[in-house]
Amino acid sequence: MQGLMQEWPLLCSKIIDYAARQHPRREIVSRSIEGPIVRTTYAEARSRALKVAQRLERDGYRRGDRIGTLAWNTARHLEAWYGIMGMGGVYHTLNPRLFPDQIAWIMNHAEDKCLFVDLTFVPLVEKIAPKVPSLNKVIILTDAAHMPDTKLPAVPYEEWLAEADGDYEWVDLDEHEAAGMCYTSGTTGDPKGVVYSHRSNVLHALIAVQPDAMGLSSRDTILPVVPMFHANAWGLAQSAPMVGAKMVMPGAKMDGASIYELLDTEKATCSGAVPTVWLMLLQYLEETGKKLPYLKKVVIGGSACPRAMTRKFRDDYDVDVIHAWGMTEMSPLGTLGTMKPEYASLTGEDQLDIKVKQGYPPFGVEMKVTDDEDLERPWDGKTFGRLKVRGPAVSRAYYGGAGKEQFDEAGWFDTGDVAHIDQYGYMQITDRAKDVIKSGGEWISTIDLENLAVGHPDVAEAAVIGVRHARWDERPLLVVVRKAGRNPSKAEILGFMEGKIAKWWMPDDVVFVDDIPHTATGKIQKTTLRDRFKDYQLPTEEAGAA
Amino acid sequence: MQGLMQEWPLLCSKIIDYAARQHPRREIVSRSIEGPIVRTTYAEARSRALKVAQRLERDGYRRGDRIGTLAWNTARHLEAWYGIMGMGGVYHTLNPRLFPDQIAWIMNHAEDKCLFVDLTFVPLVEKIAPKVPSLNKVIILTDAAHMPDTKLPAVPYEEWLAEADGDYEWVDLDEHEAAGMCYTSGTTGDPKGVVYSHRSNVLHALIAVQPDAMGLSSRDTILPVVPMFHANAWGLAQSAPMVGAKMVMPGAKMDGASIYELLDTEKATCSGAVPTVWLMLLQYLEETGKKLPYLKKVVIGGSACPRAMTRKFRDDYDVDVIHAWGMTEMSPLGTLGTMKPEYASLTGEDQLDIKVKQGYPPFGVEMKVTDDEDLERPWDGKTFGRLKVRGPAVSRAYYGGAGKEQFDEAGWFDTGDVAHIDQYGYMQITDRAKDVIKSGGEWISTIDLENLAVGHPDVAEAAVIGVRHARWDERPLLVVVRKAGRNPSKAEILGFMEGKIAKWWMPDDVVFVDDIPHTATGKIQKTTLRDRFKDYQLPTEEAGAA
Repeated sequence: MQGLMQEWPLLCSKIIDYAARQHPRREIVSRSIEGPIVRTTYAEARSRALKVAQRLERDGYRRGDRIGTLAWNTARHLEAWYGIMGMGGVYHTLNPRLFPDQIAWIMNHAEDKCLFVDLTFVPLVEKIAPKVPSLNKVIILTDAAHMPDTKLPAVPYEEWLAEADGDYEWVDLDEHEAAGMCYTSGTTGDPKGVVYSHRSNVLHALIAVQPDAMGLSSRDTILPVVPMFHANAWGLAQSAPMVGAKMVMPGAKMDGASIYELLDTEKATCSGAVPTVWLMLLQYLEETGKKLPYLKKVVIGGSACPRAMTRKFRDDYDVDVIHAWGMTEMSPLGTLGTMKPEYASLTGEDQLDIKVKQGYPPFGVEMKVTDDEDLERPWDGKTFGRLKVRGPAVSRAYYGGAGKEQFDEAGWFDTGDVAHIDQYGYMQITDRAKDVIKSGGEWISTIDLENLAVGHPDVAEAAVIGVRHARWDERPLLVVVRKAGRNPSKAEILGFMEGKIAKWWMPDDVVFVDDIPHTATGKIQKTTLRDRFKDYQLPTEEAGAA
Repeated sequence: MQGLMQEWPLLCSKIIDYAARQHPRREIVSRSIEGPIVRTTYAEARSRALKVAQRLERDGYRRGDRIGTLAWNTARHLEAWYGIMGMGGVYHTLNPRLFPDQIAWIMNHAEDKCLFVDLTFVPLVEKIAPKVPSLNKVIILTDAAHMPDTKLPAVPYEEWLAEADGDYEWVDLDEHEAAGMCYTSGTTGDPKGVVYSHRSNVLHALIAVQPDAMGLSSRDTILPVVPMFHANAWGLAQSAPMVGAKMVMPGAKMDGASIYELLDTEKATCSGAVPTVWLMLLQYLEETGKKLPYLKKVVIGGSACPRAMTRKFRDDYDVDVIHAWGMTEMSPLGTLGTMKPEYASLTGEDQLDIKVKQGYPPFGVEMKVTDDEDLERPWDGKTFGRLKVRGPAVSRAYYGGAGKEQFDEAGWFDTGDVAHIDQYGYMQITDRAKDVIKSGGEWISTIDLENLAVGHPDVAEAAVIGVRHARWDERPLLVVVRKAGRNPSKAEILGFMEGKIAKWWMPDDVVFVDDIPHTATGKIQKTTLRDRFKDYQLPTEEAGAA
């Protein structure tokens, strides 16, 4: 027996329609790439998005075409997304922090036909464009007065847009059709394309705005520092207009002073960014003695939020940190560290014990940790396993079929992370699955060891890798970059770690290096390290015991 | 191009699975029909729902079968819903306040095969059952010790349930399949069956928990006074477990003292009920001098919430009233009176001016007001028209195809209400479409006139109906029940109204009656009144002017 409720497909166009209808005058404030702060509204953003859609169609782009964007967070970028989606196209965000050849590879893989680009990235596109034969148009997000001199097949956005009258209706789509794409850049292999559907974007936004997730309302002013090219902007490009929240877009400037200026003048109540950005802001606040009277909460993800940062926000600025974890493949929200009643009355360091965890999933995200036989591990806050997730905004495949091994038949996606889950459902990432060390059948978390080692005052950076071992299969090797002018010994570092971890977790040896290799996005390149030390001879147990 | 996100159907079983997984120890507290307060948890409710599903299957019920419930709000009723839905059945809530013949008509129309029933309603079912040939089993929501002596094919719920071991998996359904049914009892014609799908129930819950809608969180304790047999319990049976909120179920007792006791001992933070219930509570509080230290907000709907009630809650008890409007056909939420930033700083009477409106729709509900030619009317806070709605949790048809005229091809559902919408999107109901008076092409709101007339100190109740008029088509007739011992004249009442409304809105005449007819659910039966006065001769204009 079928239900008798309306066919009302979950399309992203419904979000901007809603914002324009119910919150027409609410502002989107942007720090423009040209410099000045510019202001628009949801009503205007929608009418310009209609023109984008109409104008793209006039240029011959059609339903299903991938349209790249290489741009900062601004209202123009937001309009472009809704315009692209509204004509049935697929926004494809490109990360300017990748190497030009990687970007070209990704654009060729997705067969991007058209590209919206900020002034900042025109020189980058000039390098990339000759390598991407499918690309036939570049729309520079500026006006004629600011157009750079370029040989690209480029037009200024404003004049291009002005050729449309906006008399347009959104294309009637199936909710399962593609809305957007974002490639993940792992530490190994080629980038893999995630394809969001209209349905997954709408459901993700509904899930995200819940009080126990991001908790967004029309009375909020949201400053998404997290770039739209990073993991679907944590869904904020959909969730903010869905509730009619004011948006403040930081453009190209994410230093402490610039972010502070927007938080303060626009009275932002909520923001989202990676820890690095908040570090810059907190440094700026300390240097200037400024405060954050309007900001109520910050969502912090992308990498683990240090305990000291959460403490400083809470104690010095009365700002609640919501630690979050997600992945490009999850649209991206997975877990958020809001407080269940079991933890709600905690204060001081006890509260921070929970806030260093990555939180628990809202309705719509299922989660488990498993052992090597795919059996579920207990939720005891210490037994870690491979973290697997399921949900309507979680990938079921990568574009073109890469990475099949990450998806199982029951629909679980293997995140590649290793984590434990406590009795109340709070998850904490302990490692990447490919980095975890399996010693005699037991798992050792390299992240825990690294965090411990960098606590030594003479250590600048540390990485732990597994090295082959005849008896235990693998044993941990600690790779250390010393601070300038400091010269700690192996014994000093191991002595510092001793007693703070289980004895069998202790690294078998320490090597000192001048430099630890990193990826373009700043992650430690453990594959390179493992290659370099693959024949490393650990001291024998006898020697180690000596 | 298709998105590559997971097939994860929006099924109600996912809600109880989530609650049991992430909020297993959160309580559902019920005032049992047998008397005592009983406590269970989401984990236990899920495991008992699994048994309900398994046990129903063993009794031969199958996917798509309609299973009636005639019961108060208790954990058992909630378990029954999830068990019925989990085996693919369709919960069909029956309103015990209807006349037995109406209930039998509804059960026959839906072809209910099985019925879960509270002890309270066994005598009622004994009257109904012989008239419903499809009904072959009655499960009484109690245990063997409390079983009444009855000739019904009845079993006690607890013992029936104990025959299942709960080793069961939810049936794998399509999200568009039926999950529940609820018949609307209009003032005219046969009741019409609304059929909720799993998808509509899940989306409705996601929409409802948003900060700007009901704003529900795991830290809330929710007391749903609104019965599960009334308009899908305003979605609370899905939205509370979706966020892991504690639930407090009032059972059969909804008087002021009983509701107060639960609000106080269970520290409820949030509740939902019709104005009548709150009137009883407020009277109780005034008589006893008690306060509401834990309650933060009440959602009030079902009929318009009087301004004085909102004021009293706010000023005397520091409780925020969220005025809401919806319909059984809307799952049921349509609009909620939370504050947009445009209104957020209002206080005093200015705030009440907004709070008497029914609010604005969250994302997922589209709304417009139209004239007789279906052209949209402006949002100016005064021009009223027929209220039409659209959305994924709005009906597209009634069961069996009745009422086709309420659904148009573009998907709009004609609510049968007349309303205006202000510049910020806040809607206010002004009449029922079938009651509104069309005088010389202009519309007159009977509700506005009635509200005004009952303001006269000698008037107990008032109804306004349209009476045929040669020149103006229809003119308003005011029907008044005088207060005992009072004897106001026509002129006194009309004099009281004069100057407070447009001159052409003034009733052409007043008639005094002993009694105004009502439906089983307490609404004025205007059809009966119109029948009675269909040949009423209004005074001629000349006479009226004399």
